[in-house]
Amino acid sequence: MWQMNAADTKARLYVEDDLAEGRTLQPASDQQHYLVNVMRLGDGDVVGLFNGRDGEWRSILQREGKRGCSLTPQIQTRQQQSSPDLWLVFAPVKKARLDFIAQKASEMGCSRIWPVRTDYCQVSRVNDDRMLANAIEAAEQTERLDIAQIMPFSPVFDALSACDDDRTIIFCDEASAGDPAANAIARLADARPIERAAVVIGPEGGFSPAERSRIDSLQNSLKLSLGPRILRADTAAIAALTCYQSVCGDWA
Amino acid sequence: MWQMNAADTKARLYVEDDLAEGRTLQPASDQQHYLVNVMRLGDGDVVGLFNGRDGEWRSILQREGKRGCSLTPQIQTRQQQSSPDLWLVFAPVKKARLDFIAQKASEMGCSRIWPVRTDYCQVSRVNDDRMLANAIEAAEQTERLDIAQIMPFSPVFDALSACDDDRTIIFCDEASAGDPAANAIARLADARPIERAAVVIGPEGGFSPAERSRIDSLQNSLKLSLGPRILRADTAAIAALTCYQSVCGDWA
Repeated sequence: MWQMNAADTKARLYVEDDLAEGRTLQPASDQQHYLVNVMRLGDGDVVGLFNGRDGEWRSILQREGKRGCSLTPQIQTRQQQSSPDLWLVFAPVKKARLDFIAQKASEMGCSRIWPVRTDYCQVSRVNDDRMLANAIEAAEQTERLDIAQIMPFSPVFDALSACDDDRTIIFCDEASAGDPAANAIARLADARPIERAAVVIGPEGGFSPAERSRIDSLQNSLKLSLGPRILRADTAAIAALTCYQSVCGDWA
Repeated sequence: MWQMNAADTKARLYVEDDLAEGRTLQPASDQQHYLVNVMRLGDGDVVGLFNGRDGEWRSILQREGKRGCSLTPQIQTRQQQSSPDLWLVFAPVKKARLDFIAQKASEMGCSRIWPVRTDYCQVSRVNDDRMLANAIEAAEQTERLDIAQIMPFSPVFDALSACDDDRTIIFCDEASAGDPAANAIARLADARPIERAAVVIGPEGGFSPAERSRIDSLQNSLKLSLGPRILRADTAAIAALTCYQSVCGDWA
């Protein structure tokens, strides 16, 4: 398996503390529980730490008491890098799939994850803390060095208004399904370079006609199709992020 | 919302019966339960039927007894079309994610879904019936006209040996992660036209060195990278299938 960490790294954790050589820190109690009781790590075991600012640090675990531990950063193994300036703006779906979208957006390297209210959206509340926990867990597993920013649940046009003119709004329109002229890869390749983008995914049932024409009329919007089959919102999000990352983002 | 079905279609079901005008059929008892008790359909309601052979038929429901119903195809609304000749060959993961992979491969238009045993695979049994049920449910929702074939759990090189010389083995290699020379879209665009393909996804932990060099040495294998982050197997499957469908498959 490809690992940026040394092969002896037993776990990878996000912390909020500053990371510097020799600066011992106490991870959160659920992290201590994970390291000591779940992973059964002991004195001298190696953990990778990152905080979104200081890169990644090879750190040494020290047991403390029966159930606790501290960690001491020893050497920086990766320099800080930011994820592409890529937002996912989406109409949230049922709980399990919402967890899933937060994880997947994080794996796919989004810098901001923004749940939005649309005309046909069936969800009335979103648990921000739970989305953040999912984004952090995915970042730990996917070797990211930063955590996506979770935005509060807002009306869709609030999110789109927050897109500056140089942020391309990648509008994944179910109503264009199967239109080869809207082929995702071709549209993105033609529009390159795109430095900043927001991928926009509708709810089950799509956007309303009023929303569609309003999004279409935005000067920085790029409408694309994700093939002839109707994709669920979570699949559509991964597919659209794949197209972006592969053509315009950090896969290229 | 984009719908190939008329707006009055209340449900879409896969059946095994032949479909022809006026030929009344009895759906399976769980389907009758779904139509009558879950969807609460009544006499004259419209259901879309497909069987993988005869296209899609606008069909009329007739209640029978307290809990049953029959369906009568009235008019063919779509001609039969096959999905691209695209296999997903993957090392299965835990149960919930396995359901998920079967659904997503179906949404992404795979013709065959093939769970395989690899050196680092942690699963010892796969429930074929459950995978098929997931593939059927996804096909019903995604407007497909056929059902992906579910293959029995087999050693990975049995599946690769079943690939004829003209089937490109799209080898998603974690060990090439982040190598821009292996960029998925660029590799597939260079290799076009690819008429038949098998996307191959390893388990958590990737393929063993012996497996990697053996897959690499296959004359029809095309190694590609899915970016710099480590993706979970289910995410990698959707991402690779997106790249294929968008460049070589039926999104183009």
